[in-house]
Amino acid sequence: MNNIYLDYAATTPVDERVTAAMQPYFTQVFGNPSSLHRFGQQAESALEKSRRVLAGFLGAKPSEIIFTSCGSESDNLAIKGAAFAARQQSRANHLLISPIEHPAVLNTANQLADLHGFDLSFLPVDKYGMVSPAEVQKNLREDTFLVSVMDANNEIGTINPIAEIGGICRERGIYLHTDAVQSGAHSPLDVNSLNVDLLSLGAHKFYGPKGVGALYIRSGTDLSPMLTGGSQEFGQRAATENVPLIAGMAAAFELVQVEHDQRTNHILPLRDYLIKQILTKIPSSQLTGHPEERLDRCADRPDVGFA
Amino acid sequence: MNNIYLDYAATTPVDERVTAAMQPYFTQVFGNPSSLHRFGQQAESALEKSRRVLAGFLGAKPSEIIFTSCGSESDNLAIKGAAFAARQQSRANHLLISPIEHPAVLNTANQLADLHGFDLSFLPVDKYGMVSPAEVQKNLREDTFLVSVMDANNEIGTINPIAEIGGICRERGIYLHTDAVQSGAHSPLDVNSLNVDLLSLGAHKFYGPKGVGALYIRSGTDLSPMLTGGSQEFGQRAATENVPLIAGMAAAFELVQVEHDQRTNHILPLRDYLIKQILTKIPSSQLTGHPEERLDRCADRPDVGFA
Repeated sequence: MNNIYLDYAATTPVDERVTAAMQPYFTQVFGNPSSLHRFGQQAESALEKSRRVLAGFLGAKPSEIIFTSCGSESDNLAIKGAAFAARQQSRANHLLISPIEHPAVLNTANQLADLHGFDLSFLPVDKYGMVSPAEVQKNLREDTFLVSVMDANNEIGTINPIAEIGGICRERGIYLHTDAVQSGAHSPLDVNSLNVDLLSLGAHKFYGPKGVGALYIRSGTDLSPMLTGGSQEFGQRAATENVPLIAGMAAAFELVQVEHDQRTNHILPLRDYLIKQILTKIPSSQLTGHPEERLDRCADRPDVGFA
Repeated sequence: MNNIYLDYAATTPVDERVTAAMQPYFTQVFGNPSSLHRFGQQAESALEKSRRVLAGFLGAKPSEIIFTSCGSESDNLAIKGAAFAARQQSRANHLLISPIEHPAVLNTANQLADLHGFDLSFLPVDKYGMVSPAEVQKNLREDTFLVSVMDANNEIGTINPIAEIGGICRERGIYLHTDAVQSGAHSPLDVNSLNVDLLSLGAHKFYGPKGVGALYIRSGTDLSPMLTGGSQEFGQRAATENVPLIAGMAAAFELVQVEHDQRTNHILPLRDYLIKQILTKIPSSQLTGHPEERLDRCADRPDVGFA
């Protein structure tokens, strides 16, 4: 039987060039970045190079990027970290999210409410699964410490107006987190034009390895670390850094920057053809998610392309 | 300059056979184990095979093994998971650890005390850094939910009497966690003879990759998940499983089982020679840690060897 893999939104194979980029860090430059000797320094240097790649991709400072074990961990750290930091400072107790977030956000918010007594409320979404900035404005409270709205939905592809939502949050001094795990490879992500304080990324949705992710933490954003122990990753995430996979994630992002438009130009007509054929030939069929504001929109919109 | 790497306790290179074992899961069997189609099933099957290897190594059931992103995460999950589960059930509030635990245990316990109001106390250790079972007996309280004592210390190598400590905890219905990240490759670890409920392992201290670990969770042990989201790993740890590195960890453990005695027979005389020469030739020198109950003791003690 000839299998055709169409589930790239669940995970992708690792690009051979990414595998090649990881290889030296398994067996040659294998030191622990925390070790002070040369073996450690070489590993540390590879780590910092990867951090600069991610920072460049996001328009961030390298010190604002920390590496995690996956997009889910990034989501957990962003939300729990903000929650416990807010509590520690007796700042605020209210968390506002969209109801169709990825489970890593949804169940994290639910755990904070059920187990830790945080006050959780949900933003309405329209028929396309989109959050409106006006609803964010309306639902913010005096004691809101964080809003979390995903950049693009992992099942229906709808893209949210993150920049506008971020502008509203910024005015009120409330953090905005966005889960960009699904959109990382599809939209150019500039943390400044998006107005976000926290942004989660993973690697395995765009030819990078499973088991590595990153969290953008805007300078000055208070998080209480979730993974405690050593002082790695600016004290935000303890554990010996996974240098090979981090190098792999950086390599995958470098490929996105170079190949994004080419990938999109290839896949977008196929996607549109598939949608059109299904809608035409299957009478009861309908398109879930937003008809235009959906992944991957960039080929239609050269103004937001990578090139 | 010719560099000689002697810092294997910080991290090791990945064995070429381990690299080879991981390889197919990056590019060929790359599915998401949560996907229901054949690509997902193949990945799931590799994951479960690795779980059986770890379970076999520890004398555990496969359903008692969950994979994490590192030893530090395993420590965090064991301790925070037990703490919040205890609180949820209003069972108990007291945590008892040794004062010379790895930072992943120490700082996790401190965070639980400082940020979450748990009651933390420390066991005394003798001049070798060893915890005595009698002190555990004396320091247990009615409201103790967890004792955490490392199997072997990561800096001085002293091995603790975990089985005896575990016997005392079991009698009182209190969970025992042991951080075996440093000892995993040196001592045979049987969770039943050790009397532990929770045991943390990492892979990168014995020729496995960085960025993967495991936690043994004795059946019936209540943990509140730390990484929330999807229902992976029996609901104990959300996130797409890192299949390649998990397969690498299993391969590294298989090598430990086969090569342990040979590795020990090689290194132990060198270690003893080094210790003896330093103590003889440097008058003010002294050996830190226990003179006999230290890693790697197995060559001296064929009764606890792997063979």
